[in-house]
Amino acid sequence: MPTNPPTTDLDAAMMARALELAARGEGRVEPNPMVGCVITQQGEVVGEGWHQQHGGPHAEVNALAAAGDRAAGGTAYVTLEPCCHTGKTPPCTGALLTAGVARVVVAVRDPFPQVNGGGLQQLTDAGVVYEVGVGEADARALLAPYLKLIERGRPWVIAKWAMTLDGKLATSSGSSQWISSPESRELVHRLRGRVDAVIVGAGTARDDDPLLTARPAGPRTAARIVLGEIPPASQLVKTADQAPVISVVPAPGAHHKVPPGVESLAVKGRTHTERLAAVLDELGARRMTNVLIEGGARGLGAAFDGGLIDEVHAFIAPKLCGGADAPSPIGGHGLADMTKALRLTGVRIETPGGDVYLRGRVEQGVS
Amino acid sequence: MPTNPPTTDLDAAMMARALELAARGEGRVEPNPMVGCVITQQGEVVGEGWHQQHGGPHAEVNALAAAGDRAAGGTAYVTLEPCCHTGKTPPCTGALLTAGVARVVVAVRDPFPQVNGGGLQQLTDAGVVYEVGVGEADARALLAPYLKLIERGRPWVIAKWAMTLDGKLATSSGSSQWISSPESRELVHRLRGRVDAVIVGAGTARDDDPLLTARPAGPRTAARIVLGEIPPASQLVKTADQAPVISVVPAPGAHHKVPPGVESLAVKGRTHTERLAAVLDELGARRMTNVLIEGGARGLGAAFDGGLIDEVHAFIAPKLCGGADAPSPIGGHGLADMTKALRLTGVRIETPGGDVYLRGRVEQGVS
Repeated sequence: MPTNPPTTDLDAAMMARALELAARGEGRVEPNPMVGCVITQQGEVVGEGWHQQHGGPHAEVNALAAAGDRAAGGTAYVTLEPCCHTGKTPPCTGALLTAGVARVVVAVRDPFPQVNGGGLQQLTDAGVVYEVGVGEADARALLAPYLKLIERGRPWVIAKWAMTLDGKLATSSGSSQWISSPESRELVHRLRGRVDAVIVGAGTARDDDPLLTARPAGPRTAARIVLGEIPPASQLVKTADQAPVISVVPAPGAHHKVPPGVESLAVKGRTHTERLAAVLDELGARRMTNVLIEGGARGLGAAFDGGLIDEVHAFIAPKLCGGADAPSPIGGHGLADMTKALRLTGVRIETPGGDVYLRGRVEQGVS
Repeated sequence: MPTNPPTTDLDAAMMARALELAARGEGRVEPNPMVGCVITQQGEVVGEGWHQQHGGPHAEVNALAAAGDRAAGGTAYVTLEPCCHTGKTPPCTGALLTAGVARVVVAVRDPFPQVNGGGLQQLTDAGVVYEVGVGEADARALLAPYLKLIERGRPWVIAKWAMTLDGKLATSSGSSQWISSPESRELVHRLRGRVDAVIVGAGTARDDDPLLTARPAGPRTAARIVLGEIPPASQLVKTADQAPVISVVPAPGAHHKVPPGVESLAVKGRTHTERLAAVLDELGARRMTNVLIEGGARGLGAAFDGGLIDEVHAFIAPKLCGGADAPSPIGGHGLADMTKALRLTGVRIETPGGDVYLRGRVEQGVS
């Protein structure tokens, strides 16, 4: 039966710990959600676990294994409603019931169609006390990409750029290497290594001839997507055997030549923004959870104009390059009224190699 | 007689303290230099002082007054070579000798024509031991505006802007109020209140109709300078009785109408950059020590293209406005090669009201 006692400090602290554990799965578990679990007995932690790898045991199972006999009669703190279906692994509700857990505290209900309250129902049917909503805001923030993919069918879109302090992505003649510090670029490689796709505009593919791979490799291998045609002699084409390369062409795209090893993705849409939205729909259908748009100004402008950006990672180097014709990070149409500018929330600032690295999420409901 | 013993930790610490004291005069003493002084006796501080106000007593005199009899036989740490001429006050060398100071430690020699080693000569003539160069790098950094005015005849140029995280000074339609937080704008008012002039381009004067005053008022009242014509109905013209307003017009400028209360400054030059350089020459001749260029993109671009910027104060708001046509902070021609970008040194980062406030000085010898 569900109960709704006031959340205790102990409950809040245990859920915060479970969320910490959950975050360790980032880049490794998608399209599954990151989940963490803490088992307590008389207020003492007797087991911890998290979902470590896609296809591997869920957080509850790992935590119950760590707790062993001490789980019986205890409390399980889980960041997401336990699953009640057999996927790649047996249902977690069964594991919790078998272990004899007496109370389950959950941060957020799982909207995944095969769960969606069913896990909680199974618990209550078996007489287990449960509570939902402890640490819910933090859990929703952590799970935002997972929740977006389920609820809107599109991946979470991270926009990344490096610019000079005077707001330039490149000089007026297109020179851009390197704006940011080696330490900043290392962070970009880590970001690439945890997402499902890295997207750039055709201009960036042509002018910068980037590899777009994570070096060193991360837990995931991102598809490399160009919004337009890809030069046949590019590094992307040469390395098409190392990570997928996708060229987005207007539908019907039968007449576009695509270099060998490159997938042609034909999408409909009159504008850059419409075509990018169609690409995101397709990537969502492929169950991609996080994608990274790395520019250039036109590609980021298309994303911005469509309200498609969820999160920003900006690197600002303390240097000046000047130039009225030098591109600044987000092109496109932009906004007319500064009071309507999109605010970032949850802003975090670091200073890798002397750069400013500012990341945050686009505030919901503004645009 | 001069001596050059290795600098002791005590000497370094006392000079660091003297530099701290000196900095308190910022905005109050110009065009005099900021100077601080610490008097010690047997390694103990017996007096401290700094130049507090233009026209008031110098640092040495204030420190000696604090030390009283205890200065005799002691050491004086002074951030700048003591003056040996009678200006608005009697020479400080005389005060040090009268007090019986036995040793004088100086951070940096004063290039001011009426001093320039003469102070040290007077000390050595009187048998006082002195040392020059303790804390010199820090003293030169503190005194950079003073030293530039004497050595190059131009004021120190601070470029200031507020931009969105995507590098925009305004939206594509010119909307710019407000990009930065109230806390950031308060810091800008403090900056205005310590400089001798605030400079903007004609476009900014026309589009933003700014007041350019410090509110609340600071220790100085900056002249408000527009690089071009000033609309007669502007706030600048309406408040011309509160702080000087100068309109920079091409020479010969006899035919330019200037609104009542506004000074017309005719300068030669074919380009924005050449005219701005001529303005700086004129402001240097008026013994202005610090000037603030507040934009817009064209004015900052003119300054950048001429290598005229000494220091940058940038406010970056965590918000996005987008737009390929929205101006980024520094226009003009800019650089072609990103590897030649001007680096900032001595970078300091604060986060007023959630903005990033990054300031630093343009590295010498790069452009």
